[in-house]
Amino acid sequence: MAVITADEYRERVARLTPRLFMGGKKVERLTEHPVTKGVIDATARVYELTADPQYADIMTAKSHLTGEPISRALHIHQCNKDLQKRLVMARLSSQKLGTCNYRCPGNEMLPSLAATTWEIDQDKGTEYHQRFNEYLKYAQENDLVVSGSVTDTKGDRSKRPLEQDPDAYVHVVEKRADGIVVKGAKQHATGAYAADETLVLPGMSCRTGEEDYALAFVIPNGAEGVTYVAQYNPFSVEREYAEDIQHIGNPIYGQRETCLIVFDNVFVPWDRVFMCGEVEYTQSFITRFAKTHRMNCGGACKVGFMDLIIGATQLVAEYNGLKNVSHIAQKVTRMIQLNDTSLGCAIAAAHLGKEEPAGSGVYMPDEAMSNIAKLNTNDGFWEVMRLAGDITGGVVVTSPSEKELDNPEIKDYMAKYLKAAAPADKRMRIMKFLQNWVAGLHGVGTYQGSGPSQNQMMVLYRITNLEEKKKMAEELANIKGCS
Amino acid sequence: MAVITADEYRERVARLTPRLFMGGKKVERLTEHPVTKGVIDATARVYELTADPQYADIMTAKSHLTGEPISRALHIHQCNKDLQKRLVMARLSSQKLGTCNYRCPGNEMLPSLAATTWEIDQDKGTEYHQRFNEYLKYAQENDLVVSGSVTDTKGDRSKRPLEQDPDAYVHVVEKRADGIVVKGAKQHATGAYAADETLVLPGMSCRTGEEDYALAFVIPNGAEGVTYVAQYNPFSVEREYAEDIQHIGNPIYGQRETCLIVFDNVFVPWDRVFMCGEVEYTQSFITRFAKTHRMNCGGACKVGFMDLIIGATQLVAEYNGLKNVSHIAQKVTRMIQLNDTSLGCAIAAAHLGKEEPAGSGVYMPDEAMSNIAKLNTNDGFWEVMRLAGDITGGVVVTSPSEKELDNPEIKDYMAKYLKAAAPADKRMRIMKFLQNWVAGLHGVGTYQGSGPSQNQMMVLYRITNLEEKKKMAEELANIKGCS
Amino acid sequence: MAVITADEYRERVARLTPRLFMGGKKVERLTEHPVTKGVIDATARVYELTADPQYADIMTAKSHLTGEPISRALHIHQCNKDLQKRLVMARLSSQKLGTCNYRCPGNEMLPSLAATTWEIDQDKGTEYHQRFNEYLKYAQENDLVVSGSVTDTKGDRSKRPLEQDPDAYVHVVEKRADGIVVKGAKQHATGAYAADETLVLPGMSCRTGEEDYALAFVIPNGAEGVTYVAQYNPFSVEREYAEDIQHIGNPIYGQRETCLIVFDNVFVPWDRVFMCGEVEYTQSFITRFAKTHRMNCGGACKVGFMDLIIGATQLVAEYNGLKNVSHIAQKVTRMIQLNDTSLGCAIAAAHLGKEEPAGSGVYMPDEAMSNIAKLNTNDGFWEVMRLAGDITGGVVVTSPSEKELDNPEIKDYMAKYLKAAAPADKRMRIMKFLQNWVAGLHGVGTYQGSGPSQNQMMVLYRITNLEEKKKMAEELANIKGCS
Amino acid sequence: MAVITADEYRERVARLTPRLFMGGKKVERLTEHPVTKGVIDATARVYELTADPQYADIMTAKSHLTGEPISRALHIHQCNKDLQKRLVMARLSSQKLGTCNYRCPGNEMLPSLAATTWEIDQDKGTEYHQRFNEYLKYAQENDLVVSGSVTDTKGDRSKRPLEQDPDAYVHVVEKRADGIVVKGAKQHATGAYAADETLVLPGMSCRTGEEDYALAFVIPNGAEGVTYVAQYNPFSVEREYAEDIQHIGNPIYGQRETCLIVFDNVFVPWDRVFMCGEVEYTQSFITRFAKTHRMNCGGACKVGFMDLIIGATQLVAEYNGLKNVSHIAQKVTRMIQLNDTSLGCAIAAAHLGKEEPAGSGVYMPDEAMSNIAKLNTNDGFWEVMRLAGDITGGVVVTSPSEKELDNPEIKDYMAKYLKAAAPADKRMRIMKFLQNWVAGLHGVGTYQGSGPSQNQMMVLYRITNLEEKKKMAEELANIKGCS
Repeated sequence: MAVITADEYRERVARLTPRLFMGGKKVERLTEHPVTKGVIDATARVYELTADPQYADIMTAKSHLTGEPISRALHIHQCNKDLQKRLVMARLSSQKLGTCNYRCPGNEMLPSLAATTWEIDQDKGTEYHQRFNEYLKYAQENDLVVSGSVTDTKGDRSKRPLEQDPDAYVHVVEKRADGIVVKGAKQHATGAYAADETLVLPGMSCRTGEEDYALAFVIPNGAEGVTYVAQYNPFSVEREYAEDIQHIGNPIYGQRETCLIVFDNVFVPWDRVFMCGEVEYTQSFITRFAKTHRMNCGGACKVGFMDLIIGATQLVAEYNGLKNVSHIAQKVTRMIQLNDTSLGCAIAAAHLGKEEPAGSGVYMPDEAMSNIAKLNTNDGFWEVMRLAGDITGGVVVTSPSEKELDNPEIKDYMAKYLKAAAPADKRMRIMKFLQNWVAGLHGVGTYQGSGPSQNQMMVLYRITNLEEKKKMAEELANIKGCS
Repeated sequence: MAVITADEYRERVARLTPRLFMGGKKVERLTEHPVTKGVIDATARVYELTADPQYADIMTAKSHLTGEPISRALHIHQCNKDLQKRLVMARLSSQKLGTCNYRCPGNEMLPSLAATTWEIDQDKGTEYHQRFNEYLKYAQENDLVVSGSVTDTKGDRSKRPLEQDPDAYVHVVEKRADGIVVKGAKQHATGAYAADETLVLPGMSCRTGEEDYALAFVIPNGAEGVTYVAQYNPFSVEREYAEDIQHIGNPIYGQRETCLIVFDNVFVPWDRVFMCGEVEYTQSFITRFAKTHRMNCGGACKVGFMDLIIGATQLVAEYNGLKNVSHIAQKVTRMIQLNDTSLGCAIAAAHLGKEEPAGSGVYMPDEAMSNIAKLNTNDGFWEVMRLAGDITGGVVVTSPSEKELDNPEIKDYMAKYLKAAAPADKRMRIMKFLQNWVAGLHGVGTYQGSGPSQNQMMVLYRITNLEEKKKMAEELANIKGCS
Repeated sequence: MAVITADEYRERVARLTPRLFMGGKKVERLTEHPVTKGVIDATARVYELTADPQYADIMTAKSHLTGEPISRALHIHQCNKDLQKRLVMARLSSQKLGTCNYRCPGNEMLPSLAATTWEIDQDKGTEYHQRFNEYLKYAQENDLVVSGSVTDTKGDRSKRPLEQDPDAYVHVVEKRADGIVVKGAKQHATGAYAADETLVLPGMSCRTGEEDYALAFVIPNGAEGVTYVAQYNPFSVEREYAEDIQHIGNPIYGQRETCLIVFDNVFVPWDRVFMCGEVEYTQSFITRFAKTHRMNCGGACKVGFMDLIIGATQLVAEYNGLKNVSHIAQKVTRMIQLNDTSLGCAIAAAHLGKEEPAGSGVYMPDEAMSNIAKLNTNDGFWEVMRLAGDITGGVVVTSPSEKELDNPEIKDYMAKYLKAAAPADKRMRIMKFLQNWVAGLHGVGTYQGSGPSQNQMMVLYRITNLEEKKKMAEELANIKGCS
Repeated sequence: MAVITADEYRERVARLTPRLFMGGKKVERLTEHPVTKGVIDATARVYELTADPQYADIMTAKSHLTGEPISRALHIHQCNKDLQKRLVMARLSSQKLGTCNYRCPGNEMLPSLAATTWEIDQDKGTEYHQRFNEYLKYAQENDLVVSGSVTDTKGDRSKRPLEQDPDAYVHVVEKRADGIVVKGAKQHATGAYAADETLVLPGMSCRTGEEDYALAFVIPNGAEGVTYVAQYNPFSVEREYAEDIQHIGNPIYGQRETCLIVFDNVFVPWDRVFMCGEVEYTQSFITRFAKTHRMNCGGACKVGFMDLIIGATQLVAEYNGLKNVSHIAQKVTRMIQLNDTSLGCAIAAAHLGKEEPAGSGVYMPDEAMSNIAKLNTNDGFWEVMRLAGDITGGVVVTSPSEKELDNPEIKDYMAKYLKAAAPADKRMRIMKFLQNWVAGLHGVGTYQGSGPSQNQMMVLYRITNLEEKKKMAEELANIKGCS
């Protein structure tokens, strides 16, 4: 059965035993630690949505390998419609979770792997694509959570891998008959410790001489030699020590949880290796992943988040008794503009997408539009945060704990003085929800997800046909009429 | 024959005799006055592009009334593809003309007329749609230039039509058996004096009691009682007195030329009246026109203009010897981002468009996305202008005349001192081309075309489903868990 | 002795016993709770700076009442130089603390009280000014920490005080021979629970009929009937449970800590009442406080914070090996521009300031410039945060805990994989410091401190002489030459 | 007599006979050509303001050389108050003229010459300062209009002077006993052809080997070998052919008029040479000029222009019947914020200014603040233009000519249809005035005046003490506690 239930997922995840550290301590059981539990609850919710008939068209697809219904999270886009449904899926998940859906990063690497392994095989007679398809079939048939990791730890950013500690980038340290041994570490790996599998892609475009770094593979959760070190921040501590998670910002699902993955001489059998040494394809690998990720992350995932921020901000305004105030409506409209702008560019990316490489059957979004969707979100998300903070006011950051509502010594004060046009508990709860967005990790997280602005600017400058625009201007200005 | 040649167009336009004033004087012959000649040359160029086989798919369509090939400028969108081709047509025209194509405003009213006359007839058993189709067939068969006008002169903006000089808005002053008599004036009518026909739509949403203002009709060029007063500004004077138009910014086609149209008791026969008194439909008339116009104007026409500005700016940078300077590349990339953002939202508007009203066969773009395309262009165009001005530098506004290059007394000085990495004449010409964009009428013109930002903001606020967003936030924040 | 030492301050604060709740629990000892301890450490540091001879000119002043040297935090500005030194003091404190100095809000109310009590007495023959001077002498002689509170809880923002629960705004419930009894609550009161005294000013401009709300007074810490409810958020929890505060963002001094102050029938003797019923002066009270606060908060306090963010961001860039990257330098320069812009407007506010009311001896900053300093900071601070987040990258929010550096199981991994052009511990520590700024409470806090943007916009529109600007334009355009 | 009247100025300027070309033709009489007449009228108005007792404190100063009252335009700042009065003078002139006052650029070079000649003499025992003082005394005693020019034509911007046509930068071609012979050309020279004198400063920082380019001198109007080529653009043509200048945007004073000055082997006697070969001082020359100019140009001159735009925009809103519309008030307030921000930074520049070099007696503004005043104006001016264009609407660029108001055939139509809450003539006139600002040369002109943004960004990055900010962050983050 290719689409499993949330309960089946929960049973499977309960059996995982990754070597995971958080806040200086080992996490013994994923299902019990308050932070990792949030990751599992979020993922389980995605399984629920997938099983929900009203979302079937969005959350599931037909496997091009088996013809079976599968989770769209494991689907390779076969047409423009697939690209667009992918957007709808990403936005829906964000709206329902208020955090990462944890099936997304892997999902955006799969099409890049499908396209580029096909291309290498065509050019070089290798067998990567066949291996990849076998692996994909396995993942689809078991409806696995496939996570992904790209960003190396990089060490000194002014140096190439061979100019410094060679482990600053993940690389092959030994090739054997049955597989390869890899070393290094990847950072910002979203939800990897709770995923069934983690894909590993090159985080840079490699040059001749850097063959050991031109590397794509997949490992199962908790493979030998793998250590996960989880992020840890004020929001982690708050969740760790919460008596009642309803008092926390995004109560059930929490923040986006990432980790550092250390590969300490990890063995990977050949049937899980999808590139090894073909430096000339690293650029396509990354570019294809990046444009798919930027379309979804910039133009749909964060759009769903901004929907939540806009909705919550409007609630606060109404709870405060300021429903029809002109300057607030103006600001809310600006928030909507910013949100829909990112979405619009992503829809254009899906709509202008093409099969790439021709003959591969894989559809890729338009590169300019996907990069622009992300660029607009980068700045737009901060402006949405800022406007939300402006409208909701200082109480978003100065509010006492919701626990005081139950504190017999002062609960009457709280009810009396924190009410407005709505009761105190509603106001405090929605303020706490907004605190999570406007005074938390999401601003910088938006830059991090699918890369910082400068990357997108560089892509955009590189791929734009300036010559064509120059010719148009030359023609109208009649430059030919000059000497 | 439904698609005529540029020459056929020129012959026809030469026969027009509108009552037209410009700069305090009567314009006797449209084909001879330097300013009106630019309008005709631009329009003729559009006929050339339409006849050019390489653009056939973009510039022509199949009439849904006759099945004949027609200019897309007279086509009613029958599907999403039509909406998108409309975008490509608008951008192409802008790139080739650097000014208005003069067939656009009417073109964006025709679908609104098609949809709303159909709707009125369905509801009220009137015959507007049949009349409109007859008229449209006539226009298509003769490949007419159909101009349009919407914006009333409005008088005191704080007052409704009946609270002031009743002629501040165009209205019916007499209904006869054979037609109606109208009075008032419309402003910002682009190219109307050189068009075969001018459509007149209501410029406001009418209320009960304002039936005389709920009015849509079409008049032929120079109908009795009609007077045109052309815009007149520094760029008009420059063109009027130019010895050699190659020395002017957009040499052949010039600025976008508009006029005030005065209707002094103009008779319109019933078969040219498409609404008369149905106040409850004025809102749809305007909204449908606006969303079609905003998609094209904001997301394609100005995009073509920005293509030209970007191309010319890059040329200037190269002519100055600054091809690979980092901060210039960064700014050019920002210009590209802004341009493609508007385009992306327009593509989304086309792609998300729907038949409206259901059953009418007319396709309308998505209202949110079309308004956002325009909103982004409003501010984006100014930022593009600003960045172009920043990169090109002061010489864009302090340059001597190109005539000095032929002035025997100083031409050697000019050649010597205005050269850079390119000869003086090339630099001066592209600078003059850019002066037209960054120190001219286009900035404010961008706000005017399809309306100022506040209009789009109001639409966006009105049509956004804030309740849905509020619910999402309430669900995640578990507001139901409150008292 | 008018200037006490940090130790003397610590001894005094240790004797305070406010009724204070935080995170659902009563705080028994201010000096021991990790959060309140941070407030005390920050305040003690201010006493140290005040006693430091190198800062004497900035941190101290000569009392206009006694001629004695006093802390500038208790000084009434006697000239423009005083206003400017106040700026330098605020910026210095922010640079040294990275949080509130806790002597600031009261300090910005004192001049408003001095000016307005003088004015009321002049007009009405009351004795407020004399009382105020007596009180001020007492505060100066004992070098007290005088906190302040302005913002009422307000209830339904669309209603005036008398249209809803009358306690939504602090007001008099009884007038006695020996004093008044007050009821209501104030929010956002910075550091009040650890201050010796708290000034209470009206949070709104009162109208006739609202005399009971036109109220200014001062209470000692922990007055009978007063309850403090502290803010509580992820950063509070992190500090509460930290084993080593060096692992926290701003290790010693923490966040800006505020509280809700509930006044439950609190008695205030007449010699501590500085306004009672004079509704016509509430506007001046607020305006004078606001312009003083906006100059300092917007143009100096946050400037010191931005100095820290800029410095830390530059460190991160260097630690990453990206010292001389062009786009980073460009962004850092933009951060500097934003920071110095706020400072520049504040300096102008100090320099253009005037004695107000004439004869009172009190100097007030220029109202336009102080409001503009704050307005520029409101948006500028967010842009500085955003650029810092962009330059530092995702690790600011995805970093593991610094505790892992001591975790024997993985400390070698941490040292190896989190190093760059600097060792892992330095990078992690500065990243944690930045997390505090770019993923924390300060963004919204910036809006809250001295009020949201819309307030400043309204002031600016109200006080600008548009008539004068209109006349200039009329003169040049020769409007008089018209009919 | 050191301060002459407007009439005395007019008599003197009527005797000037520069070799001047404009629009391809030689200008025979400065006082008669419509464009050059505008320059003279503007300058004469400045003489009127200087003679007006109500402006005496602003427009005049006491010469530090003679003790006589002189025009402030020829004064060397002796203290911070002088710097600030200079700001008030610049803003006042802009408000009264709506264009350049034509005495400004020279005025901003004079302090730089005073300071740097003093410094060279101190270091090298030269006599430049004495020469300069003699020259200055002559200029003050005759109350001359001293223009200035800095920007070389530069040729290929990627090459130094000696790598290309050596005349791309003004330089010495011969040194004689009695003086030097110079060659090259300067561009953007404001009003030079109508000035009594033109100062010439180096436009770049020279290196060893480029001694011939390290050059400062002054020439009288129309010196032998000098040719002026005036800018020529649509606004020039409009003025050239206007029957009634009241129909033009800024009717009496027009645009800012600049020219190219060609030096074709021009002889300059030694007593007019203020630097010749001291490459190591070119940087200070430029920097001192730049910071003085940026303070005034960015923070006062354009502020006066923005005052006019704001005033005119408010008039249009009122003429249209939209006096109290909320979103318009919001936009006008934003315009005020932008304007006052630039002013505030300039006031801070004046206030923080210092004697430089110490001992010279010359006061220079603070470099950071003056650059920031200009930076803020660069973008702020465009935003003010944009908002003005948004509020006033399309009629600013689509308006017919005011001549139509006198056209007997249509004047009734014009009066009827262009009236609003004000008569047609007033509305048309103020719209035309605004056209001059929002659809004209001023946007790019703002970048040009005292240099483009990138220059200011580079200065700001260079002069900011990043080390100090890094230390503050290191201290608070306790980086020393690390390994």
